[in-house]
Amino acid sequence: MKASYLKLTKPWLLDHYAHKRAEALHRLDTLILLTFISVLIVIVLTAWLFKHYRFRFVHESGLTLIYGLLIGFCIKYFDIGLWESTTIDVAPTNVTLQLREPPDYLRLEVKEKEQSQAQSVSFHYELIEGFYADKRKKDEQKIEQKTAFSPEIFFNILLPPIIFNAGYSLKKRNFFRNIGSILAFVFVGTTVSCLVTGILLFVLTKIFAMGFAFQELLVFGALISATDPVTVLSVFTEMRVEPDLFALVFGESALNDAVAIVLTNTIDSFSMSTETVDLNALLGAALNFLYVFFSSLLLGSIVGCLTALLTKLTHIADHSLLETSLFILFSYVSFLLAEVVQLTGIVAVLFCGICQAHYTFNNMSEESRATTKQFFHVISFLSESFIFCYIGVSVFVAGNQKWNLPFLFFAMIAIWIARAVFVYPLCAFLNLKRRPRIAKNYQHMIVFSGLRGAMAFALADRNTATENKQIICATTVAIVVMTVLFNGGLSNWMIEKLGIKHGDQIPNEYSLPRTDSAGEEREMIEPVTTPTSSGQNPWDKAFLPRKWYNFDANFMKPLLTHANPSLMDTMPPFTWPIAKFFTSDRQMAGGSL
Amino acid sequence: MKASYLKLTKPWLLDHYAHKRAEALHRLDTLILLTFISVLIVIVLTAWLFKHYRFRFVHESGLTLIYGLLIGFCIKYFDIGLWESTTIDVAPTNVTLQLREPPDYLRLEVKEKEQSQAQSVSFHYELIEGFYADKRKKDEQKIEQKTAFSPEIFFNILLPPIIFNAGYSLKKRNFFRNIGSILAFVFVGTTVSCLVTGILLFVLTKIFAMGFAFQELLVFGALISATDPVTVLSVFTEMRVEPDLFALVFGESALNDAVAIVLTNTIDSFSMSTETVDLNALLGAALNFLYVFFSSLLLGSIVGCLTALLTKLTHIADHSLLETSLFILFSYVSFLLAEVVQLTGIVAVLFCGICQAHYTFNNMSEESRATTKQFFHVISFLSESFIFCYIGVSVFVAGNQKWNLPFLFFAMIAIWIARAVFVYPLCAFLNLKRRPRIAKNYQHMIVFSGLRGAMAFALADRNTATENKQIICATTVAIVVMTVLFNGGLSNWMIEKLGIKHGDQIPNEYSLPRTDSAGEEREMIEPVTTPTSSGQNPWDKAFLPRKWYNFDANFMKPLLTHANPSLMDTMPPFTWPIAKFFTSDRQMAGGSL
Repeated sequence: MKASYLKLTKPWLLDHYAHKRAEALHRLDTLILLTFISVLIVIVLTAWLFKHYRFRFVHESGLTLIYGLLIGFCIKYFDIGLWESTTIDVAPTNVTLQLREPPDYLRLEVKEKEQSQAQSVSFHYELIEGFYADKRKKDEQKIEQKTAFSPEIFFNILLPPIIFNAGYSLKKRNFFRNIGSILAFVFVGTTVSCLVTGILLFVLTKIFAMGFAFQELLVFGALISATDPVTVLSVFTEMRVEPDLFALVFGESALNDAVAIVLTNTIDSFSMSTETVDLNALLGAALNFLYVFFSSLLLGSIVGCLTALLTKLTHIADHSLLETSLFILFSYVSFLLAEVVQLTGIVAVLFCGICQAHYTFNNMSEESRATTKQFFHVISFLSESFIFCYIGVSVFVAGNQKWNLPFLFFAMIAIWIARAVFVYPLCAFLNLKRRPRIAKNYQHMIVFSGLRGAMAFALADRNTATENKQIICATTVAIVVMTVLFNGGLSNWMIEKLGIKHGDQIPNEYSLPRTDSAGEEREMIEPVTTPTSSGQNPWDKAFLPRKWYNFDANFMKPLLTHANPSLMDTMPPFTWPIAKFFTSDRQMAGGSL
Repeated sequence: MKASYLKLTKPWLLDHYAHKRAEALHRLDTLILLTFISVLIVIVLTAWLFKHYRFRFVHESGLTLIYGLLIGFCIKYFDIGLWESTTIDVAPTNVTLQLREPPDYLRLEVKEKEQSQAQSVSFHYELIEGFYADKRKKDEQKIEQKTAFSPEIFFNILLPPIIFNAGYSLKKRNFFRNIGSILAFVFVGTTVSCLVTGILLFVLTKIFAMGFAFQELLVFGALISATDPVTVLSVFTEMRVEPDLFALVFGESALNDAVAIVLTNTIDSFSMSTETVDLNALLGAALNFLYVFFSSLLLGSIVGCLTALLTKLTHIADHSLLETSLFILFSYVSFLLAEVVQLTGIVAVLFCGICQAHYTFNNMSEESRATTKQFFHVISFLSESFIFCYIGVSVFVAGNQKWNLPFLFFAMIAIWIARAVFVYPLCAFLNLKRRPRIAKNYQHMIVFSGLRGAMAFALADRNTATENKQIICATTVAIVVMTVLFNGGLSNWMIEKLGIKHGDQIPNEYSLPRTDSAGEEREMIEPVTTPTSSGQNPWDKAFLPRKWYNFDANFMKPLLTHANPSLMDTMPPFTWPIAKFFTSDRQMAGGSL
């Protein structure tokens, strides 16, 4: 057997080499981080300039995308920060070896050429990716190593605070007034959009023989159905758009991320080889979808309620640092716990955020309230900006995107048809019972506000092992860029054009609360019993909401917050021994919060 | 030539495999994160309980270490979350290949056993570490993969906010009153401690023939000289210890991290093969040390001042979200920029923090002040807790620590001798001019407060390629655990025992400001001209501080903040055109801030 190790031409020391390599990698890491952070600074400054001079045709996310594109272009065409790497082909030294799967680690033995008596050194290599042998050039891999970062960072670090913040800063009153319509959009709408996109694309790609499986296109349909709340939120807030429309659009885009991710996972884990539709399997998938969604919802809510109980029953509010830390940690746990038990963290963290705002917020010290609000606001702003910038960069730099213009063209058509196909009929249906009706111009605006953003990109970027998935990833990126720039940029104009009430056209007491934190807080701790300004209690409308409202006011709020009436007032006498335990001194004293 | 690819025994799809592998890794990642976050929750809750019941013998960091040890023990002995990984030996397919260094990536070709006509798949492997062939067992590597995370995360993500917060929340008045003594401790003290530890250990290990190079021991001396501010800070704050002692101990431990890191890097990059001391090289190293330290200091301060100018000259304070984001981003840039230009980020971020507190803080909106304070407080608390927990876990789990009890024993002796050797003579020297003198019992307390923490661990953990470095890493961990538990736990007792004034024994106006943020803020925006309570202006003492004070009051403050007098008042007439540009409307109006 031949000497099975790599020979090195120059004398060297392992210690020295490790030091040098660690330093080179560190410099590269910091350089990449510095680039992104510097871009974020430029973004913040330009965002301020635009706000200051009331320039409204490009918004933060659009701006961020453009900067990202510019940077990606520079990296690609000026070879900035190219990491000089070497790759060699290897084979197992044990030629009879047979494994079930590719190994996770390789060990490579190295010796200096001249000194065969020198101590040999082993190097440990970790599997990073697999690809079909002829599909990729070496150069591309070289560049990719500099800027690609693991999708794990998206899902575990960047997305949770964004989604949590959506739940935590939800304007409760307007949201709950439109809860029925929002849920219809979220569940029916997203599913229809996913199916229509998938089927349309399947027909189109079959005609042109582009070789996509139906299941792949359905996955694309699911992930591209996640609309993005960021840009629309900023435009609508700034123009102070009529609050019902605001609630519909924002509610839909905040919640359908969760539906899209569960849908994508469900379809993705569906048997990979099927092109015939098996009704049983379909039913199973639907049930699985419902199970995952509602279990995640429940889990997130339970974690939120647990935090509320904990802050109520302990005096941790005396130590605002500990209280704030606990709040942040528990909110993050809701996400991680759901992921570990194979549910969907995004759904859990969203509903955890809603519960934290509804219950825990009332128990916290004045200081922690302000801190947590601002903390998540800043973190989610920075995460969003980072993701949008990264999307822009990835257009030029990522090695896992493959452009296919016909497919992109078909996809653009399909997603807008799919969106129109569910918005108009659904609005017509909802208008049968809903008061006030959703006017025609509102419906147009809802269709127009179907921007795609971070979640769609994250889902597409997660798995790009095959060529088709790489096409899907590139298409998603293009759609995000185009909708954010085009629809985002024209939102102002569209609002004017469609004659949608905004700003001073809306009677004052009916208008959207301003976004300064004082106003938000006031709204949040306001008792829910306040009748809405239109004079009717929205909860009177339907049976289920009314039931929930009573349950919330008589059981959940007394149990989880310091609000009065306490459990001692609302529960039957035989439960009093237990009820007493959950009644705080402040509730005993009878003072309202 | 033989068929040079790996054979797989079962049919499989690349797409499917990538999906499965990504999922498995994701579950592992979230599980590890969940474990750490859950432990942090338990830590916060126990910390609250201890505070609530005034139990003082174990402090947060000690507690966190103990939890970390417990978790590490569980992971090790119950094999929790063991990642089933496979490793195979490989050799280059090109047998004549010769390289200068081990390759960064390996490509492994894979085919199914039966179907030689199937499309072949390549897998890409990345270099993670090197080790001498016979030094490590396979099992240890398996376990290590689950919990070890890259030192990059320590240095780029976890440490900067901790150090920034130390600078940002520094009690300026007490700090500057003792600046001379603190700097003496930091520069002379740390250097002496490093040399004494290194020489003592060199003598001891030579006697017992343990085979350490002098340079390795000097590196150890440097990294172990970084004392930890966390535990002492919490004990001293809680007991409201006499403020001069507080400033001395806290100032030393906050600043000597920076010196230790520069010292370690300087010695580490010193020629690797020398055991004879070359005077020229030594001088070069000393000059390099000074260059790196002061350039970093300057760079951090410049970034801080730039932020101040920016917040002063723009109206970004109207948008508190953007303002806060900008503040956070700039603070982080000071760190990254220093690292990229090969200076020391920790020094830069520390002095950036001090500048931000001294200048920028005054320009910000009320809301941003509170937010940034709380933000860094929370982030640094969580980062610290995480690091201490991780140190505990690493004792049982890390594959890069090698225990050597005699060395540990010698090291324990050496570090305390080294600390005593510089504290007592230095205090005697300082007492020649210093008023009030540093009393004998204060000197004992300073020696006793030499706890080791996060920075020492991070430096030791960074490079563990050789066996000696692994011994040093294990020894550092042991020293951190012992000093935090023993010295940290007995600090209260020691303060009583030595008869150091604390709590109500100190006249009220002379006592430490309470740590609620309102108090802190008031202190921070207080004009520096206030004479200290002892009736003498501390700046009268020496020539250099007085010069700096004048420069600060007449140029820096008017330039960088809205404080009065403005540049128009303090600068000579010929500079007025420029001075006017840097004078804000608020300064024009003549109102004090």
